[in-house]
Amino acid sequence: MASSSSYSNSPCAACKFLRRKCMPDCLFAPYFPPEEPQKFANVHKIFGASNVSKLLNEVLPHQREDAVNSLAYEAEARIKDPVYGCVGAISVLQRQVMRLQKELDATNSDLIRYTCNEMPTTTTTTTNQGGRRVSEGGGSSIGQSSGFYYHSTWNNDHL
Amino acid sequence: MASSSSYSNSPCAACKFLRRKCMPDCLFAPYFPPEEPQKFANVHKIFGASNVSKLLNEVLPHQREDAVNSLAYEAEARIKDPVYGCVGAISVLQRQVMRLQKELDATNSDLIRYTCNEMPTTTTTTTNQGGRRVSEGGGSSIGQSSGFYYHSTWNNDHL
Repeated sequence: MASSSSYSNSPCAACKFLRRKCMPDCLFAPYFPPEEPQKFANVHKIFGASNVSKLLNEVLPHQREDAVNSLAYEAEARIKDPVYGCVGAISVLQRQVMRLQKELDATNSDLIRYTCNEMPTTTTTTTNQGGRRVSEGGGSSIGQSSGFYYHSTWNNDHL
Repeated sequence: MASSSSYSNSPCAACKFLRRKCMPDCLFAPYFPPEEPQKFANVHKIFGASNVSKLLNEVLPHQREDAVNSLAYEAEARIKDPVYGCVGAISVLQRQVMRLQKELDATNSDLIRYTCNEMPTTTTTTTNQGGRRVSEGGGSSIGQSSGFYYHSTWNNDHL
């Protein structure tokens, strides 16, 4: 929801930051309430007020809140990790998906062998409690991600 | 690798775009070779040349190539999807991780019942070929992602 205090007497966080008068038709006011000054400071630092304004004018009014929130998320991630930003999260998640997929394939193979009344050749990887194995490495931070391979998955298949 | 043609006679893509002389110590030249004009055009449109320059000066020289590549990735994603940008990819991947984790937990539970010589109560979910079940929905595009829930996972646990 856009802020209910957008059109109160207080200037929005964007106008306060930019030291300008907040007009009733302010494009930023519904999405940058005065009580969240850091949200605008972050997007201003990473994208610039002019670029955010252009982007908001490019999308439909009902999409603007999602657009601002995703920009704020990206900006915060870039401030926390200037090298990788939120792309680091994509890299970590892609690794997690590949690990889970591999794990699931192996478990399914074991299960098929059991349903066919065959004992699996190795039992060490199949006797763990559900979900325990995949949690390993799940706590790795974005900053620890080494290199990129997100291009292969997202650029070609999904973007 | 930074472009080998960075210091050739041709101005880098950034200087060409900005219509300025490309000096030997140009900050952009190693990362924006003249043969990739779109790369700079994208980061310029989304972040602005000044912000990119500031960010490059904030990180160590050996981190600059990764920083530029992640910025270029974010910029391209934002141009393709102005509302969600690459945050849409995070949302899709998070859903994929949760689906795979749930699937793996269920398969592990079935496997444990088999290893304890108990028949699973339902066999319909356990007799699929490895990996087949998890592929459903894997082709969904970022643009089709509905709403955000990436905050709950990334903001609190990983960023």
